[in-house]
Amino acid sequence: MVSCGALHSFLFEYDTARIVLIRSRKVGLINRAVQLAILAYVIGWVFVWEKGYQETDSVVSSVTTKVKGVTLTNTSALGARIWDVADYVIPPQEENTVFVMTNVIITQNQHQGRCPELPDDTTECKVKNNCVPGYVSTHSNGIQTGECVPYNNSVKTCEVFAWCPVEDDYHVPKPAFLQGAENFTILVKNNIWYPKFNFSKRNILPTINSTYLKNCVYDSQTDPFCPIFSLGKIVEAAGQNFQEMAVEGGVMALQINWDCNLDRAASHCVPKYSFRRLDNKDSAHTVSPGYNFRFAKYYKDSNGTESRTLVKAYGIRFDIIVFGKAGKFDVIPTVINIGSGFALFGVATVLCDIVVLYCVKKKYFYREKKYKYVEDYELGVSETYGTNS
Amino acid sequence: MVSCGALHSFLFEYDTARIVLIRSRKVGLINRAVQLAILAYVIGWVFVWEKGYQETDSVVSSVTTKVKGVTLTNTSALGARIWDVADYVIPPQEENTVFVMTNVIITQNQHQGRCPELPDDTTECKVKNNCVPGYVSTHSNGIQTGECVPYNNSVKTCEVFAWCPVEDDYHVPKPAFLQGAENFTILVKNNIWYPKFNFSKRNILPTINSTYLKNCVYDSQTDPFCPIFSLGKIVEAAGQNFQEMAVEGGVMALQINWDCNLDRAASHCVPKYSFRRLDNKDSAHTVSPGYNFRFAKYYKDSNGTESRTLVKAYGIRFDIIVFGKAGKFDVIPTVINIGSGFALFGVATVLCDIVVLYCVKKKYFYREKKYKYVEDYELGVSETYGTNS
Amino acid sequence: MVSCGALHSFLFEYDTARIVLIRSRKVGLINRAVQLAILAYVIGWVFVWEKGYQETDSVVSSVTTKVKGVTLTNTSALGARIWDVADYVIPPQEENTVFVMTNVIITQNQHQGRCPELPDDTTECKVKNNCVPGYVSTHSNGIQTGECVPYNNSVKTCEVFAWCPVEDDYHVPKPAFLQGAENFTILVKNNIWYPKFNFSKRNILPTINSTYLKNCVYDSQTDPFCPIFSLGKIVEAAGQNFQEMAVEGGVMALQINWDCNLDRAASHCVPKYSFRRLDNKDSAHTVSPGYNFRFAKYYKDSNGTESRTLVKAYGIRFDIIVFGKAGKFDVIPTVINIGSGFALFGVATVLCDIVVLYCVKKKYFYREKKYKYVEDYELGVSETYGTNS
Repeated sequence: MVSCGALHSFLFEYDTARIVLIRSRKVGLINRAVQLAILAYVIGWVFVWEKGYQETDSVVSSVTTKVKGVTLTNTSALGARIWDVADYVIPPQEENTVFVMTNVIITQNQHQGRCPELPDDTTECKVKNNCVPGYVSTHSNGIQTGECVPYNNSVKTCEVFAWCPVEDDYHVPKPAFLQGAENFTILVKNNIWYPKFNFSKRNILPTINSTYLKNCVYDSQTDPFCPIFSLGKIVEAAGQNFQEMAVEGGVMALQINWDCNLDRAASHCVPKYSFRRLDNKDSAHTVSPGYNFRFAKYYKDSNGTESRTLVKAYGIRFDIIVFGKAGKFDVIPTVINIGSGFALFGVATVLCDIVVLYCVKKKYFYREKKYKYVEDYELGVSETYGTNS
Repeated sequence: MVSCGALHSFLFEYDTARIVLIRSRKVGLINRAVQLAILAYVIGWVFVWEKGYQETDSVVSSVTTKVKGVTLTNTSALGARIWDVADYVIPPQEENTVFVMTNVIITQNQHQGRCPELPDDTTECKVKNNCVPGYVSTHSNGIQTGECVPYNNSVKTCEVFAWCPVEDDYHVPKPAFLQGAENFTILVKNNIWYPKFNFSKRNILPTINSTYLKNCVYDSQTDPFCPIFSLGKIVEAAGQNFQEMAVEGGVMALQINWDCNLDRAASHCVPKYSFRRLDNKDSAHTVSPGYNFRFAKYYKDSNGTESRTLVKAYGIRFDIIVFGKAGKFDVIPTVINIGSGFALFGVATVLCDIVVLYCVKKKYFYREKKYKYVEDYELGVSETYGTNS
Repeated sequence: MVSCGALHSFLFEYDTARIVLIRSRKVGLINRAVQLAILAYVIGWVFVWEKGYQETDSVVSSVTTKVKGVTLTNTSALGARIWDVADYVIPPQEENTVFVMTNVIITQNQHQGRCPELPDDTTECKVKNNCVPGYVSTHSNGIQTGECVPYNNSVKTCEVFAWCPVEDDYHVPKPAFLQGAENFTILVKNNIWYPKFNFSKRNILPTINSTYLKNCVYDSQTDPFCPIFSLGKIVEAAGQNFQEMAVEGGVMALQINWDCNLDRAASHCVPKYSFRRLDNKDSAHTVSPGYNFRFAKYYKDSNGTESRTLVKAYGIRFDIIVFGKAGKFDVIPTVINIGSGFALFGVATVLCDIVVLYCVKKKYFYREKKYKYVEDYELGVSETYGTNS
């Protein structure tokens, strides 16, 4: 055949499969049933339920927080003392997290110098030789001078060069020093953005007015969209006990879920808040249970020598974790799903063919109608077969 | 048929559909047209446009920033004062964000003690009974002692135990205290990584030399790849007024978009910078417009009593938001798309069959050719039908 | 045909393609081979290798860190001095990162006042006129007063109003001031969460007991799951030299990879640690090599005037970068892949048809069997053709 003719036939001929049309209630119904099932699956599950027709994007977020509240403490060491935001939020601002000090061990007037190390199986000593000059371990407060000096009337420990006196954090104040923190509140401002759809929204919804914001406190039932949270309620919502947690500190997650279906009105895209505790409670599995860190305030005496107040701050760190996916109709996933759904229809045919050709009573009769046998070697046979096609 | 024979036929027989080949210009052309459309879609749209053949990965990023600039202020309270980085960047370093103080309310020499609360509809009082000892609200600076003391000549307010004197932040300095901040610059160093492709790159491109870096300032037109940004220009690029924003502070996003097609040369993968304001402007919808936080500097007098300077810092927080997707050829998505695209060809056949069997003039003739009717019940009919197949 | 009849036939008729069954070893084998290849691909590659049957989710993570270690320095300026966590970790806590100071330039007793600027091609002067009152550049420490004063015996520079004396950071201490930092350790606590599967886990595995945690140090070979890292080892693992890096500082990534197959037991989902250096080493391509920032400690003299100690802190910032994907069986991707894999079988048929109809010796014979030609215009031909179908 010349290429021109080939082109001609390619363009102007249409070939379609020859069909055996079997008038059989049973087989016909089976066929339609299977097709229906597949159709139901593709439409119902893939499209309606799993939104297979949507393109998705994950959230880009920015968070700012503001803590409010004051509390009073009264101890022999410090006397009556008021604590406000500037005192208990350290550092004063962070990106997606805020730390509220709930318990504290304060070591005042530390100077660089020599003093006995904390008693401990490695640091206690009887005589000078027990101490190695220059020795320092992971847990030591300073570098050993090699002397063995009395820590108190009963115990002698190796002398160290360190910030003296060294911090004694054996006894964590219990109940927590800043119990009042339970009533503090956090205002969380969250601005999210879906780059792919250029859709942005804030967790302070347009429907909220400032008078409401002044007084509301988040409650999953009554105020699900109020962005002001009481510390106590957050911890409680995570199934924890605030006063317990306050003693050794901990890490809480304030999760904001922004799952949005952008095929619907933007007003349906709202934040869902949830709370989790992130640090491991069972102290068996952690070297330092809870959450704490040390920092110092530095002072200078009139004669210019530096001293510091060492603060071991136990507290609760609130990580604001923003996550979520937005979905919006898109051609690609739609067609991919249609295409492969369509392909599944082939399954229906395959199944029914099996039924027709192997299961039903008259299978031989049907086979004869469906198939036309062609021998590779001698033609006669194929002809004879051919006749009854 | 014995299973061996079944295997034999399974292996050595090939069954292909029997075709009716219709020599019809109309139908032939329709068929090819539909097929062409589908092919064009699959190739043009899915592959060329949406890069359906690519596997994607989202960015992992690390950011460091460095602010430069000094400015002079001159007020009766503080006298002439110079502000440098160590003074106005708080905290000195953060992970993906940097805060530049632009306005400030300073309350010096606060001591723990008793003093009148700020006047306010809840705190003003005429007589002692108006004040509840121990009362504290979200907005109070301290805990009420129960006394009613003069705040100034005209007003009396409840006395509180607090850091005294309490901060008076009614009047925010206007214009902003550190107007000069407009000319400060930020150097942003960003290192990104696509784990799936183990591809990493920095926003300081290899083509940039250090002399250029010393003097360049980002400009979307002239210097799109200079990583040094003038604060004023960032705010301006977001359509905001710096001096206005400086008064009450705000949150800006410095967005770095790293959309990369890794099938092309790495040199084509470059950052795109954009700027947005993240906090809500219209003060109707927010309890605390702009952005500010409090921190304190602690001092000790010669006699050891602690005092502090409370700083309410208004300023602009610059969040460096890095996002983007990298795409690279991968077999899976390619085959998925080809497969489902291929499946769509079935649609062409279905359409044309409908045309041939229901629309064209000679449909009955074609049907007769295409179909072979087989009655389930009595054979005779099927035979008669059979003949003209 | 009446619609009722149409429905009847739609429901109770089953149409299946008529098949030419060719008894040919060659073609039969080709067909099965191609089908096998496709099957092998779909199952082996898409499903087994690339887990095409899984739905994936990306990780949500929270990190806390704790540094331990003390070191001694001895310089003429500061004398013997001990450095502990509160001294060298700045700020005391951050979200996903921790900064350890390794080198430092300290400028003590700075007061607001007038002093000579650092010598530099722009600031050196011979006479008053060289200096512009009020001039300030990006790199200046203060605002020029217009005077030209002696910086030292040899050089005169423009006088500036600034924190005086101005910092001289020409000479970075070498070796690094806090060499000892090499032996410090970081404890990294990481809690991850896959929202879609509501699966969470910590990097402190249940199998780890606290006695082990007290003493272990991460080692890729011997202790791959110990969450305590020696700074020296981290830098070394990234192929860097700690003492070199300590001088000018740098940024390290401590990467935690949480790729999990949630179809298997949760115990198989474990963190993989890796280390990278994030800042650019070759100083040719960066204005400020390494990593450093400035902060100040503020003091008040007995007479109330404020002074500060300016600290230029060089150090290593450790960014804990958590990433990974979790996969779990899901119906959607499975069916999509099956569907399109199924569609690929069509390819097998197409290929074999080409072979049968164009390549083999008896192609004309096969064609005649497969096709039935139907002329659009005159019937006679089609009939004659018809006969040998």
